[in-house]
Formats: sequence, structure tokens, C-alpha cells
Amino acid sequence: MADKYVVGVDFGTLSGRALVVRVRDGAELGTAVCEYRHGVIERELPATGATLPPDWALQDPEDYLEVLRVAVPAAVRAAGIDPDEIIGIATDFTACTVLPTTPDGTPLCRLPQYAGRPHAYPKLWKHHAAQPQADRVTAVAHERGEPWIACYGGRVSSEWEFAKGLQLLEEDPEIYAATARFIEAADWIVWQLCGQETRNVCTAGYKGLHQDGVWPSPEYLSALNPGFADFVEKLAYPLSPLGGRAGGLTEQAARWTGLRPGIAVAVGNVDAHVTAPAAQAVGDGQMLAVMGTSTCHVMNADRLAEVPGMCGVVDGGILHGRWGYEAGQSAVGDIFAWFVETALPGRYRDEAAALGMDPHTYLSELAGRQRVGEHGLLALDWLGGNRSVLVDHDLSGVLVGLTLATRPEDIYRALLEATAFGTRTIIESFETAGISVRGLTVAGGLVKNRVLMQIYADVTRLPLSVLGSEQGCALGSAIHAAVAAGAYPDVAAASAVMGRVDRDAYLPDPARADAYDALYAEYRALHDHFGRGGSEVLHRLRRIRNSARIEVTTV
Amino acid sequence: MADKYVVGVDFGTLSGRALVVRVRDGAELGTAVCEYRHGVIERELPATGATLPPDWALQDPEDYLEVLRVAVPAAVRAAGIDPDEIIGIATDFTACTVLPTTPDGTPLCRLPQYAGRPHAYPKLWKHHAAQPQADRVTAVAHERGEPWIACYGGRVSSEWEFAKGLQLLEEDPEIYAATARFIEAADWIVWQLCGQETRNVCTAGYKGLHQDGVWPSPEYLSALNPGFADFVEKLAYPLSPLGGRAGGLTEQAARWTGLRPGIAVAVGNVDAHVTAPAAQAVGDGQMLAVMGTSTCHVMNADRLAEVPGMCGVVDGGILHGRWGYEAGQSAVGDIFAWFVETALPGRYRDEAAALGMDPHTYLSELAGRQRVGEHGLLALDWLGGNRSVLVDHDLSGVLVGLTLATRPEDIYRALLEATAFGTRTIIESFETAGISVRGLTVAGGLVKNRVLMQIYADVTRLPLSVLGSEQGCALGSAIHAAVAAGAYPDVAAASAVMGRVDRDAYLPDPARADAYDALYAEYRALHDHFGRGGSEVLHRLRRIRNSARIEVTTV
Repeated sequence: MADKYVVGVDFGTLSGRALVVRVRDGAELGTAVCEYRHGVIERELPATGATLPPDWALQDPEDYLEVLRVAVPAAVRAAGIDPDEIIGIATDFTACTVLPTTPDGTPLCRLPQYAGRPHAYPKLWKHHAAQPQADRVTAVAHERGEPWIACYGGRVSSEWEFAKGLQLLEEDPEIYAATARFIEAADWIVWQLCGQETRNVCTAGYKGLHQDGVWPSPEYLSALNPGFADFVEKLAYPLSPLGGRAGGLTEQAARWTGLRPGIAVAVGNVDAHVTAPAAQAVGDGQMLAVMGTSTCHVMNADRLAEVPGMCGVVDGGILHGRWGYEAGQSAVGDIFAWFVETALPGRYRDEAAALGMDPHTYLSELAGRQRVGEHGLLALDWLGGNRSVLVDHDLSGVLVGLTLATRPEDIYRALLEATAFGTRTIIESFETAGISVRGLTVAGGLVKNRVLMQIYADVTRLPLSVLGSEQGCALGSAIHAAVAAGAYPDVAAASAVMGRVDRDAYLPDPARADAYDALYAEYRALHDHFGRGGSEVLHRLRRIRNSARIEVTTV
Repeated sequence: MADKYVVGVDFGTLSGRALVVRVRDGAELGTAVCEYRHGVIERELPATGATLPPDWALQDPEDYLEVLRVAVPAAVRAAGIDPDEIIGIATDFTACTVLPTTPDGTPLCRLPQYAGRPHAYPKLWKHHAAQPQADRVTAVAHERGEPWIACYGGRVSSEWEFAKGLQLLEEDPEIYAATARFIEAADWIVWQLCGQETRNVCTAGYKGLHQDGVWPSPEYLSALNPGFADFVEKLAYPLSPLGGRAGGLTEQAARWTGLRPGIAVAVGNVDAHVTAPAAQAVGDGQMLAVMGTSTCHVMNADRLAEVPGMCGVVDGGILHGRWGYEAGQSAVGDIFAWFVETALPGRYRDEAAALGMDPHTYLSELAGRQRVGEHGLLALDWLGGNRSVLVDHDLSGVLVGLTLATRPEDIYRALLEATAFGTRTIIESFETAGISVRGLTVAGGLVKNRVLMQIYADVTRLPLSVLGSEQGCALGSAIHAAVAAGAYPDVAAASAVMGRVDRDAYLPDPARADAYDALYAEYRALHDHFGRGGSEVLHRLRRIRNSARIEVTTV
């Protein structure tokens, strides 16, 4: 019997990637990338040249379709296989990336009368202009004692559906009124593939405030804005489990992709979440950290608990039948990049170049030679605020222990360690809430930094496993495609065969772990002092800064 | 009647400078510098090549004499005046720089049998290898309830005479036994000029623990080390007031300098302290800050008070008849230099170079464009420890408020401000102790940074006057020479005529001062939290660092 294949398509922030995978063993046979023609639309609307306000981030949905038309056939060609042997396709998307459509799923921005209206376009996950709305979404939930707010660590992000939806209503009511469906791009792309609307439990739960079978109530929505009472009507649809079959590939989508019509199209999903089965990190207590510019932590457990400061907990949010937990660190790789960009002397760049290294590799090598605590420094990793467990984006970074002998590699190592301490804080928050964390698996661009990985193993005192694929998201989608096509009974079973992990690639060193216990105790003391009310200096500095900047702008 | 002149000679760390000044108006007519042939002897003894231990810093007294032979005649030639019209010479020195001599003042290192013995050489002020002895000098003083320890903010520095003397005894008892006189270089150079030993009240008080007419008792000294009981015999001598006449120039010194034999030689003095009359900062409550790599604060007052954390208070220590107070900040210019060396990206250096600026000027210009608080940062200026008011060299620097948008000029400005907050803390410590600070005068290399000066005026809310001479120390010595020669009745009178100050060069801006009040309140809260026991994290990090480094060394 001939081998069967599946296609996973990962829709990222700047491009989409297709990957062809063999069903029986997960072998990755061919891949192709398609950059979005419009990238992230942050400054002006291409259709009209109109300037966008600060913190906006839009996309053009035609770019998503181009990935289907270009990257999928290219990946199949690269794989050198017969496309007729492909039995399913699945996708994952950034989230919350959300767009307004007509009843048939046509993006409003595609209608000529709305092409010049910014609110008619998909709002990318990192569109942060709905912060005032997010603050009210959170505040009113607490005022009314909404039970679901506890499932989000007590705070709703400006990135999520209700904040973005409320901004749409309040800034462009005509577009809001014209919005029949307000839909995650993760679900919209599946609609384009199989010709029918579906909604996945993952984004509905983590980004859509859907909990315990219900959406936020009309009374709550009216309290936000009387015109917002009908918002859930634009979202509501029966939710589909992850790994489920959304439908069959349409004739049109088959022409786009070069695949057979009628093959399985999987329910939509999210990039970080599909990575868990790709890395075989779906067992209870096996935390996956997707470490890039920021870090997303996802983990399954067998029960519901309120973990203080988590991003969310969703029934079936990662794996059907398990409680899926999500937490995160706002800035991780971003902090290291900030340091190299902003605080690294030229001679270090020159030395790195002379050794044929990029600055991060060079600094990591220098930092890796040090013993724990040798630099005398300690940092709080809040240069991008704190997503978990404090859920406070007005916090900022702290660095203590500087001397005239402090070197760049010392600070760099302290920053690496600070992010590890941040992850340990999240792990301990789960443990304290009764959700055991037994292992840590790492995926994302930072896994290639071996010094960083060893620090994480030593700081968390956990064996560190590493995703064994360069294309974790697309592989995770491919696994979902195989399940949707019926090749495996469920995602866990497919993951066990098709996933790729370098198990226990880094083991904690007991002596270093002991030394880090002492530093971590100091980190936690600083963390609580600056983050939990011991001192409000960071908030006051932020207010002073913002006032001074407003004066600058208005003078 | 022909104009009369005086010569001031400033003995610095790396060189000596002579300056010829006109008595009637303080005009600076000629100057010359002589670099010390041996500089600072830190690694090996030139006589034998023997390696010195860490933290040692010696000098060769022949280098001091060469300044008299070379720089003084050169300055007189440059002035174009008749040397016979020079009526006096005075010197100032780094302190505590101290050397062992025979009864006639011959440095022990000049004796062939001791030329290979490191302890026979002058120990420069920054010889820091006597820290264990200093710790005991402090601890035993507290144990015995010695009254004088309160005059030194509760702590004796490793730089001072008793720490260095005790190290001499304990590490080379033979040299200690051969030491007839243990004398400040400030007094030794005067001995070379006038042929007789004198001791000045300034170094005896600030560096020699001489208070209220007495030296530390033999009982106290025995408690430190039984062999140390006789130490004061090596120091004791009637003390001479500043501005007094030590004697007449000897025939030999006249040949060295080209000056007339018999002219007045002034009592020895210290670089920071002579700068006060040079800057006309001798009035009660007129604080002088000599701002260079570190900052030394000196100020006169009409009464004795125990100012917590001051370096010392000495009767007549700056001006005869007044109580002279000294305080300091361990690192100031050193912090800015550390930042430029360690944390400034190459593109900033390039941009500065393209504008023909050095990096400090460029950063200051960028920083100077900001409004108070706009950068959102706050720093503790303890990268070199804290000299006043916490008197704790195991403290280290702190930086809070970092974000991914923080730029180098933001941190640079925060560091400038932190040192200004440190000065304000010292000023408030004086005020709280009942010693009023009415004005601030600045001297030293940092006065040329106008952005920094304005920040100091705004932060302290004091009018800032600036020394009006490039050679403040040598001018201050020249003023003392004029007094010693009888041209003025006292140093205050000479200062009023011969001193140079740009009075009220920087005035505080009320709005900026108000804004700084808010930031200073945050600084003080951090200062007390990290420096006064709120958190011991800085001390614990230091201990962890030192342990890790010891392990590195011994493994």
C-alpha cells in the first residue's frame, strides 16, 4: 500500500509555510514559504495611503490565500510525491488575529465600499490600540463578578476578540454594523478551504472568553456599551474540537493548492498550541515553552484549577479531553535583542565577527564560561511588562548588582537567567495551584542557544526536552491533518508517532541548580517587592514617563 | 612697587603641576606639568621586578622631587617673570599617600638595603590592600566605644594612615621597626622644601584620626595588635594650621626650583581641600564638590556636628578656625566612563565622531533634550560602592524602569541624575544634622558638562557656582603660599582676591526642580530599601559573587 501524506500550513506574522509530512512516521519531505505581500500593515493603508494611528497592526487576507496558492504546491513539488496521496490539510494561525466578514465569510475589506476603512481589515494579534477597551473589559468583569475572568488570570488582553470588537464598535460603528461574522483568521482560513464556517474551541476559549459552554452575557456586554449587546451573535457557532474534521477540500481550494478535492480539512488551530503535539508535549504536566521574541507556555492537565496569573485555561484548548493551560512571558528573545542592539559596544561586535559568530552566539559563549552567581547581577525580565504571573504590562525591567567591573557578557547572562527565573515563577504558580509540572519541552527560535537551554534546565531543575523539528508549527498542523483524515484515532496517538523530540536533551546539574536556588530566592523577593506592591516605583516611573511624553507631544 | 608672585604645586596621581600666580589679583601667568617617571607602581617593583599583590599602589618619592626640579622652573619661565619676585611656594598632595622614613625624612625605599621591599615605598591613596586592617580598625573602635569614630561617619577607610600602618606592621615588621617617621607625602614634600618636619592639621585629622587634640590611645592600638602600640610615635608632631608658614626655602630646594632661598614654604595640604579657596567656596555652608572620577565634597561650618555617613570632620581641616567637613561619592565620572566603555553601541560612537564630538558630549546633548522623567528610569549610583552617607563599599548599582524602548541616552541621563541624587542625599544629611548647605560650587573635570551641571542645579535646587580656573588645585596652593608669605592676613582674605568663580553659573529651574522632587523621593526610597536593610540583596549578591570567583580561582 502506498504511503499517505498530509500538509500542514503555518500562518505566521510575516509569512506562511507549508510542510508535507509522511503519515506513517512524521517524516518531513518538503516545505515552502510564501512571504505576505503586505506584511504587517502598521503605518498606512495600502488601498488609500491613509495613515494609521499608533499601535495599529493590520493584515490583508488576500496574503493568506496566496500562501495556499503558492506555498502548498511548492511544498508538494519539493517533497517529490504524488499529490493524490495527500489525505488531509490542516492550518495553524497567529491569534488573536481577527477579521469582520459578511455572512458568507467575505472579508469586509474586500468590498469596494469598505476598502478604505482600516476597521474593515484583519487586526493582527499585535494590534495594541484597543488597550482602553481591554481595560474596561477587565474592569467591568470584576465589577460584575463575572465568573469567567478567573480563567484568564484576572485580566483580558488588548489583543483578544472582545477588546478588538469593542474598539471596532466604538471607532467605526458602520463597519461594526456591517460585520455579520467576527472571526479568527484561524477559522476564516479553514472556511476558505472547506467552504463552511467552523469555530475551534482553542481560540474561542483563549481569545473569545468562551467558558463552561457559554459566552459572556448580553448584560455584561451592555454594561461595556449598549451597542455591544449583540456582539456574541457575530461570534457564536457550534465549537469544534481540535483535530476534528471541518469538512472536505472544496473544488476551488483544490485548484489553489493542487490537492484532491474532498480531502480532510482540519479544524483551525493556533501556532503555539499545535506545537505541543509536534514536540510530543501533550502529556499531563509536560509544559511546552515556545521561546522566541516572547515565550508562550502551554500545558495539559486532567483538571481545572485557577492558576493565578495564567493567560487562560480552556477545556480541550490544546488536546481534546484535557484542560489546556496557557501562560506567557511578554518579552524573552526581545530582551536579548534589545541588549545587543542598545547596549553592546562595537568591539564585541567586531570580536564576534572576527570569530565568524553573531553577537548572541559570542555573548552566550562568553557568558557560558561563568559560574553561577559570578557576575554578581540579578535582573527582573519585565522589559516588555509581565504577562504571567503578575499580568501587568506597566511593569518594567530592573537590574541590580552593577559595578564598575561589570561587563557586557555579565549583563547578558543576567538577562538570560532572568527569563529562566520568570519561567520558574510560572511553573511554581502552577504547582502552588495544584497543577504539577513534570517536564519542560522547549520549541522556538531560542532552542539553538545551548547556554540558554542549560540555564533553563539548571534554574527549573527539570529535564529539558527540545522539539526535534525546524518546523514545529507546520508539523503540528500536519499531525492534526492526519487525525482529521482518520489516520490516527486522536492527536495524542498521532503525536506519539509523528512528533519529534530530543528527550531530556539538557539535564539539570545539581550543584548549579543549588546555586540557582539562592539566586532565584533573590529574584522572587525582587519580583514581589516591585511587582506585588512592596514598592510602586515602577508604576510611578511609568506614569511620570507618560506624563512627560504627553507634555513633549503637546508643547 | 613691583608685582609679587607665588608658586602653587599640585601633586596628583600621575603627575605634578606648578602654577605661577600674581599675588595682587590671582592672575595665572605660567604653568608646567611633570609626569611621574614611575607613575603608579601597581604590578611590579621597578628596583627588583618583584610582583606586587592585588590592590597595591605605590609611588617613588624621587618622582615628586623631579616635579620641583622640572615643573617649577618651567612654570616660572612660562610666566615670563623675575623669579626673585616670587615670595612663597605651597603644595597640595593626594591623600592619604603616606611613606616611612628615617628620623631625618629619608624615605626608607631610598636606602639600598630596603629598595627591594615594597613596604618601604610610599603607599598611594588608592592602595586598597589594607582592607582587612581597616575593617579591624573600625571594628575595634566600635567595640571599645572610641569617641573619635563618630567623626568619620562610623567607618575608617582602608586608604587611611592607621590601616596602611597596621598593614606595614603585620606584613613587614622589619620595615615597620625601621620606620622612624610615618608621614603623609603632603608633609614630606614640605620637609624637602624647608628642611624641617611639619604636620598639617588636615591630613592629621581626616586621614590620621587626630581629634580633639589627641591621637588614638595606646590601649586602642594594642587592641589592634600589641606591636602597634607605638604607632602614634611615628606620626606625632605639633600640628600646623593650613596657610601657615612651615619654614623658609632651603638652599638645596632653591637650587632645584630656581627660586630664592628663604622664601615662605607653606604647610602641606590636600588637593580637594585647597580647591575650596581657589573657588571662593570657604564661607560657612558653601559646599564644594570636586567632581572627577569620584566626587569629594568639602564644606566649612561654624560648629561641630555628627553628620551620619560623612568621611570626616576636622577642626581647621579646610580653613583655620572653622570646622571642615568632608563627604564623597565613590564613583561619578567613573560611572559615566563605565557606561561609554561597556554599554554604548558602536553606532553612537560613529554618530558622535561624525559630529566631531566625544561620546560623552554627544550623549549629554541627546540626554539634555529630554524632559525630566521622560526616560522612565531611575538608578542608584553605587557602581563603586557608597562612600557617603551609607559608607558601604559592598553596595552596587541598581537600574529600574528598563523597557524594550529604552535607549542609551536614556540610561546615560539616568546615571547623570543618579549621581546628582547622591549629592542631594549628602546635602540633606548635613541639613538634617543641623549643618546648613546654602550653595554648591563645582570644580573638577566634570564641570565642562553643562547638561550635568544643570541637572545638579535642578536636583539640588541650589544655585550652582563653578570654579573659574583650569588649575584649581595649584591655584589653591598658590593662595596658601600667599598667606604663608604674609601677603594676606588669612586664607579667606586671599581667596576673596585670588580665587576664581563663575558665581551662580547655573540656576535651578523651578518646574524641573519640582519634577525632580518626585524622582528624588523614589531615589531615596530605593536608596533606603537597598542600602539600609529593606533588602540585603546587594550584599548577598556580592557574597555569592565573591564565593563563585574564589571557586574559579581555586578550581
